[in-house]
Amino acid sequence: MNYRILFYTLGWILNFQAIFLLLPSIVALAYREPSGWHFLATAVIVAIVGVGMTIKKPKNNQFHAREGFVLVAISWILISMISAIPMCTSGAIPNYVDAVFEMVSGYTTTGASILTSVEDLPNCMNFWRCFSNWIGGMGVIVFIVTILPMTGSNGNMYLMRAESPGPSFGKLVPKLKKTASLLYIMYIGLTLVELVFLLCGGLDFFDSLCVSFATAGTGGFGIKNDGFSGYSSYVQIVVTIFMFLFGVNFKFYFLLLMRKFKEAFFMEEVRWYAIVYGIATVLITIDIFHLMGNLGASLKHAAFQVSTVMTTTGFATADFNQWPIFSQTILVLLMFLGACAGSTGGGMKVSRFIIYIKSAQKEVASLLHPNSVKKIKMDDKVVDHETIRSANIYLIIYILLVGGSILLVSLNGFDLVTTVTAVIATFNNIGPGLGVVGPMGNFSSLSILSKLVLIFDMLVGRLEIFPIIVLFFRDTWKR
Amino acid sequence: MNYRILFYTLGWILNFQAIFLLLPSIVALAYREPSGWHFLATAVIVAIVGVGMTIKKPKNNQFHAREGFVLVAISWILISMISAIPMCTSGAIPNYVDAVFEMVSGYTTTGASILTSVEDLPNCMNFWRCFSNWIGGMGVIVFIVTILPMTGSNGNMYLMRAESPGPSFGKLVPKLKKTASLLYIMYIGLTLVELVFLLCGGLDFFDSLCVSFATAGTGGFGIKNDGFSGYSSYVQIVVTIFMFLFGVNFKFYFLLLMRKFKEAFFMEEVRWYAIVYGIATVLITIDIFHLMGNLGASLKHAAFQVSTVMTTTGFATADFNQWPIFSQTILVLLMFLGACAGSTGGGMKVSRFIIYIKSAQKEVASLLHPNSVKKIKMDDKVVDHETIRSANIYLIIYILLVGGSILLVSLNGFDLVTTVTAVIATFNNIGPGLGVVGPMGNFSSLSILSKLVLIFDMLVGRLEIFPIIVLFFRDTWKR
Repeated sequence: MNYRILFYTLGWILNFQAIFLLLPSIVALAYREPSGWHFLATAVIVAIVGVGMTIKKPKNNQFHAREGFVLVAISWILISMISAIPMCTSGAIPNYVDAVFEMVSGYTTTGASILTSVEDLPNCMNFWRCFSNWIGGMGVIVFIVTILPMTGSNGNMYLMRAESPGPSFGKLVPKLKKTASLLYIMYIGLTLVELVFLLCGGLDFFDSLCVSFATAGTGGFGIKNDGFSGYSSYVQIVVTIFMFLFGVNFKFYFLLLMRKFKEAFFMEEVRWYAIVYGIATVLITIDIFHLMGNLGASLKHAAFQVSTVMTTTGFATADFNQWPIFSQTILVLLMFLGACAGSTGGGMKVSRFIIYIKSAQKEVASLLHPNSVKKIKMDDKVVDHETIRSANIYLIIYILLVGGSILLVSLNGFDLVTTVTAVIATFNNIGPGLGVVGPMGNFSSLSILSKLVLIFDMLVGRLEIFPIIVLFFRDTWKR
Repeated sequence: MNYRILFYTLGWILNFQAIFLLLPSIVALAYREPSGWHFLATAVIVAIVGVGMTIKKPKNNQFHAREGFVLVAISWILISMISAIPMCTSGAIPNYVDAVFEMVSGYTTTGASILTSVEDLPNCMNFWRCFSNWIGGMGVIVFIVTILPMTGSNGNMYLMRAESPGPSFGKLVPKLKKTASLLYIMYIGLTLVELVFLLCGGLDFFDSLCVSFATAGTGGFGIKNDGFSGYSSYVQIVVTIFMFLFGVNFKFYFLLLMRKFKEAFFMEEVRWYAIVYGIATVLITIDIFHLMGNLGASLKHAAFQVSTVMTTTGFATADFNQWPIFSQTILVLLMFLGACAGSTGGGMKVSRFIIYIKSAQKEVASLLHPNSVKKIKMDDKVVDHETIRSANIYLIIYILLVGGSILLVSLNGFDLVTTVTAVIATFNNIGPGLGVVGPMGNFSSLSILSKLVLIFDMLVGRLEIFPIIVLFFRDTWKR
């Protein structure tokens, strides 16, 4: 472990964090909210520490997989812990563990909240929450590191692998730095388009901005106590569509921009994502028809809920605790599936499931024809052995960690549905579960232990297990 | 596919089935029960068909993996369907799907029942149910085929792999036929020991026999409406111990018989099985202490319940629906784990989890040291790549099938806990779940669709997925 480079890079991350903290201060200024001072004070202290850490550039800039994983993991934890400070000192969320829960939930784009009334918060706080969704959606470490000229492209690759969601099947363009900037440009562009659509629907600027941030990151933090049920049908439909769009692999948009339409629509993951989305929406529409009374409302609610669960955003228009069990089961299963790799969505990712299904088919084929050799392909390209093994091991660790978390949270004494869905909803970065932590409930009544377990789960889920797991191995910390 | 040899071997299986059907006829004779005629009539018809199919020995006795899988799958389905006939025609279980459910549940050693009152059944029927547990525990196809001199040892190996539970790590003795007979001798021996212990406890012969059968197969069919809560503490404790013993890898007993004590107690799987068993029992004992009032009762109930769930037997002494959520969660997690490979228990098997944990450790190590090569070992022997991959793919298909089954059963409209645990309890061959299908409930109120799905799950779970899955591949059926 190259501790010097780790220390130096963390310093730069603090510098950027200080800049980010100025944004809610500006919002506070605009709305004349005194809690803005807490953001400003935190920004100043973080900046002092950050600048101090980055004065001296390290000579040895060796940067390998270990450093990449550890940097990403520590950065995410540090950023969340710093972001929670103004929430706590200002008295908005008096308990620090609660504040950390809220901010981890923000950056990991989970959207699970311990707040019972978000409308009581000052605007700068709600801005900060939704902004964390946006920052967390695309991941910030790769962004920061790519604009620093200090590590070789090798180091960046490890970072990108550690921070970006889902198994990757090649880069968009040969240069990694260019790939990263293209991703951020598309991300910002799509967010702006949503903002314009929402403004056109008569939503005021502040609301539009917050909703756009939370949708873009598929984060799901809301600024209304009743979630999305109070918004107009227009806003609900716009958000439904944009949730879906932010769940698409960004490679798809890249290919569209390059006018490679055939290649774009040939992407297996995107096609399966759309197919599953369509089937789930139709089934739920039929299943809730008798509750809603008409096809339009059924379709609207079904599509919104499928978007919100499948992209792991976690907005709510309706209390699906009240829906038929068949619809609830579809939604719970979609929680595991999640959105596309290379999108801002969470969950296990459609592409992993495609690999799983193809691996299973291959295994059966090799049982029937023991001597045949068959390769697994994705978009007509052979998927290498390492990607497949990594996806398999991911599933294994996923299950072990989910099982362990459920056991620890069960000590809280809530019913089984609450216990299990609290873990699934945080691990997959969705937000609300069912039962006590359902769409109209929140996570405030959980014990400190449960909250700490779920904080761990949110981080492990967003960073796709390995960066956080390596922190617990002694080998990682050897010089 | 060699259809001739398949046809011929199925004929022999029918011949043995006819002999087995004579046993309940004898019980019926002893208790002067008229329903014995239904068993006798079925036996005669089955014998006629079986003898007809086995008159001409096929010339081509080519027997490969495909034939092995298909023979095992079809035999299990056929045996269950035939065994259900006398239950149905005698009027004991008027609905044929229900009767098939009951017998599949018996042979797969699940122990889930659609009967609301087992005490109303004639003794011959209860004997038949418990006997199916016993037959299913060790698996009958290998037994039948090994005593037939028709296929090469190659064919027997495929059969053994298809029928015996868990990943295998080598044979007990070089000769497969000898391995099989040793297993059956140990199985019969251990069953007899339990029978003697139960008789010493004052249980009458019929009860002792049925309980011994159901314990040995870790099947879990009971012949009392209140499960095990009516039996004496002595009987409960004897059964607790024997459930645990039948969940141990039989290789352990083999090594004991060979006086290889060191090697026996060195078996990783058996050690972990005992450790998990111990920890779970202690945790539940503490957790239910306030409900039971004293340490003895808490320990007795906890140990019984851990035995019954971990070995996937499914007996019940208490309604654990009423236990604290922490205890319930432990039991639900143990449902997935299951017992040792090479035992009569179900579930995913301890050895698979050991492989999973070691694979995960290896993956993290290879992330930290990309160039290192590490092998996964079990009992100090390198586990080959194929076994690991197969265990991984097993987990994948397991999850896909469980997810799909939950979705189909959710159409039934029961609560989520009932829906999910009904699938888990049948897939892992346990028996009772929670909620409506809890230890004091039964599966009778489920729809035909749900019952068919669960019948499929029980078979897939017992035969460890692949033998049943290959039936759905067109390649399997090519000549």
